[in-house]
Amino acid sequence: MIDIEEFGIYEGISEVIFTTISHKGIPNAAPIGLHMKNGKLFARIYNSKTLDNILSNPVACANIVDDPVLFVRSALSDIEPGKIEFIEGFPVLKEAMGWIIFDCRCQKGENISVVDLSTIKSKISRRTIKPINRGFNSVIEAAIHATRYVVFKEQKYLEHIDYYNIIVQKCGGRREKEAMKLLYDLIRS
Amino acid sequence: MIDIEEFGIYEGISEVIFTTISHKGIPNAAPIGLHMKNGKLFARIYNSKTLDNILSNPVACANIVDDPVLFVRSALSDIEPGKIEFIEGFPVLKEAMGWIIFDCRCQKGENISVVDLSTIKSKISRRTIKPINRGFNSVIEAAIHATRYVVFKEQKYLEHIDYYNIIVQKCGGRREKEAMKLLYDLIRS
Repeated sequence: MIDIEEFGIYEGISEVIFTTISHKGIPNAAPIGLHMKNGKLFARIYNSKTLDNILSNPVACANIVDDPVLFVRSALSDIEPGKIEFIEGFPVLKEAMGWIIFDCRCQKGENISVVDLSTIKSKISRRTIKPINRGFNSVIEAAIHATRYVVFKEQKYLEHIDYYNIIVQKCGGRREKEAMKLLYDLIRS
Repeated sequence: MIDIEEFGIYEGISEVIFTTISHKGIPNAAPIGLHMKNGKLFARIYNSKTLDNILSNPVACANIVDDPVLFVRSALSDIEPGKIEFIEGFPVLKEAMGWIIFDCRCQKGENISVVDLSTIKSKISRRTIKPINRGFNSVIEAAIHATRYVVFKEQKYLEHIDYYNIIVQKCGGRREKEAMKLLYDLIRS
């Protein structure tokens, strides 16, 4: 029995990186909101590689991460293969603080599908103490707006990103600034 | 020798709660940005109870916290005495994940003073694993805008708070929602 609260997951939406694997064995990583409501865990997943992978192989791993560069890269690009390790054939992120592998039950929708999650296996690798950093938090918000920007190309998303970038430059550390640089490179490419 | 990086403090600005004590022995708690630049630690502190306390007793404790309710309360009101414990006569927050007590050297300015900090004593009580929660992060942003709103009473700060409240209601857990309720109660009172 896996106690989800041990992973710091409570009611609400936790932002994690989902790793999945295609039927050809190619791993994928992407940020997903892990919902917990009335004790039930689920994700709402747009049509994407993550969804395709879950539909062909109904397993997903929620990786709990604290590196802003890793978050941005998974949101807008592909994670480098060296960042991934395989646990009984399933991809997880080496740098994750912890991960939970889920069995998935997908209710397919036209644009968005609801995926119910049951825990299979989990690991906690690392616990930390870390003060609040508005720069880190702003990278996450910017990354979410960036995923919308690359799809819809609307100016308003860029304005949000620029707003958060000011906070990153003021409050962030080296990794947060690297993450923002990567974000701008990836949305301009 | 205290290794500040063990507390997750790197270059940039970490948001912590400063506890200080007045010359009459009354403790105070308020959120402060802990700056680290070129290996030096300092805070930029507006005229406030925190600054008065540091001027009369040049010691401050940086409490690293993860409870959104505690953060909002310290930003906009007084922390309940029951939340404070005394270490060799100096107030720290019981619920802090860790704390660092600093010797302060204050360069007084007209509105804002720069306080250089040297570590004296520290403790780590608790390390955690916690996924990114946009609700939690939004409480922090809302609290910062709220501290400006109560001083300047400008509508734009309320609009920022309302924007972040939408994210809190969507992504936050029980404590984040409690924190937002408290925030609105305190800025309306």
